[in-house]
Amino acid sequence: MPLFGAIEAGGTKFRCAVGTAPDALLAQAAFPTRSPAETLADVVAFFKGTGNLEAVGVGSFGPLDLDPASPTHGSIVRTPKPGWSDFNLKAALITSLGCPVAIDTDVNASGLAESLLGAGKGLPSLAYITIGTGIGGGLIQQGRPLHGFTHPEMGHIRPRRAPNDTFAGICPYHGDCLEGLASGAAIFQRSGRHLAETPPDDPLWTWLADYIAQLCSTLLLTAAPHRIVLGGGVMSSNSVLFGPVRQAVAAQLAAYLGELPLNEIIVPPALGDMSGLTGALLLAGEV
Amino acid sequence: MPLFGAIEAGGTKFRCAVGTAPDALLAQAAFPTRSPAETLADVVAFFKGTGNLEAVGVGSFGPLDLDPASPTHGSIVRTPKPGWSDFNLKAALITSLGCPVAIDTDVNASGLAESLLGAGKGLPSLAYITIGTGIGGGLIQQGRPLHGFTHPEMGHIRPRRAPNDTFAGICPYHGDCLEGLASGAAIFQRSGRHLAETPPDDPLWTWLADYIAQLCSTLLLTAAPHRIVLGGGVMSSNSVLFGPVRQAVAAQLAAYLGELPLNEIIVPPALGDMSGLTGALLLAGEV
Repeated sequence: MPLFGAIEAGGTKFRCAVGTAPDALLAQAAFPTRSPAETLADVVAFFKGTGNLEAVGVGSFGPLDLDPASPTHGSIVRTPKPGWSDFNLKAALITSLGCPVAIDTDVNASGLAESLLGAGKGLPSLAYITIGTGIGGGLIQQGRPLHGFTHPEMGHIRPRRAPNDTFAGICPYHGDCLEGLASGAAIFQRSGRHLAETPPDDPLWTWLADYIAQLCSTLLLTAAPHRIVLGGGVMSSNSVLFGPVRQAVAAQLAAYLGELPLNEIIVPPALGDMSGLTGALLLAGEV
Repeated sequence: MPLFGAIEAGGTKFRCAVGTAPDALLAQAAFPTRSPAETLADVVAFFKGTGNLEAVGVGSFGPLDLDPASPTHGSIVRTPKPGWSDFNLKAALITSLGCPVAIDTDVNASGLAESLLGAGKGLPSLAYITIGTGIGGGLIQQGRPLHGFTHPEMGHIRPRRAPNDTFAGICPYHGDCLEGLASGAAIFQRSGRHLAETPPDDPLWTWLADYIAQLCSTLLLTAAPHRIVLGGGVMSSNSVLFGPVRQAVAAQLAAYLGELPLNEIIVPPALGDMSGLTGALLLAGEV
């Protein structure tokens, strides 16, 4: 049986796995993200020990150059992470591993897995949003991640501000875009604590639900995905947010799209923390 | 050569055409939109006089039920237009004309034509936005209109309000959504005149450009279309708006997506007022 490799390339760690199918992972490992050379050495050593690979799939932090016609296709671009800006992750892996490599964003990989095997199984479309240190998202249509002239950067949309929220936001580009207001990093910077340590009567809960809901409402009004999966550390550590987010979406849409079953539409990842690796293995199978 | 029919079904008029190809329209006519029965009688009489049709394509006002599994597929839903709510336009045309009928939204039809034959020719993706009495939009990916659980309703996204604009908006559902603030109807209601009659130093120009730009920026950050075509009466009568809209998009994105050639990306329809009929004929060819 052909063996495939999967890499979930994150800013903190690289998770790796091999498997014969997306639901049959045989070995896994994780390595701290350091310089490209140090990190890749760990990754390559792991895969050299697992046997010959048919192909490797990568779901990576970004932004990425995913233009098929670009000479730097497969590179990480514009990242503040030392050493990684303009590093061609795809090319480096092809050279080191000697097999074909498919690469997409971490959220597109997770979305692909949730769409085909998780919360969106059997449905034509799904959006996957991660709310962690940063905020990102991907759209899956008919089993394929949607790409335009670049991959989605929907964490940077501009929500309408909650009336009494005067926080300036932390995005170096936009200040108070969604990521600048509602990411884990923004929450910590505005309050000095993690969301889970915030008292239940703090208005921050309402503001966050409203901001996250604005991305959901915007997606429902544009691509109209059948499911919106909210993943990432902020959501998994504060699942109590799902209720207020759904209520805020209902208030924002005001039944314009009819009575939507938001309990079914806006959901956590069905694959838990395995969405990313599973999606990377799916990408490998499509090379 | 097989003959196809095209209908651009609008709230004010129904335009009809027949042709052997999208760039070869042989006969055209337009009829005022009245009751479904009266309007359809005109449409059917026109097509009966043009010869046997292989298929008919319709780009229609909406919202529409476009769920292929729905028993009311092809119906117009929730419209304030007397007699048209829940009228199954597709079924009525199939019965009257005796040939297959394909239906999509007016903006998806226009977008399809602009993507394949107009401003987006040769490119993988395009968004078509109309800013007229109302605001609507469609997304074309690889030559196909994008549908989720419904068609896009992007005119109802919620822009951040311009600091000194206190107009409450006119959308019966959302008040100050984009359509409630920046549609032709909203412009007339807030100022008592059409935009073309508004003095150049009126802040309304800046506000409108900012609001329209927010939809463009949101699209560039989510689906990242290669082209955004801005059509509809407000844009065609005030093409001076294109410059301020592009400038506002540049300010909102703050180079996060790199230096985008916004002069090339945000453009008027290349097919002028023929996008809709041309798109309807393309839909007919795909039945």
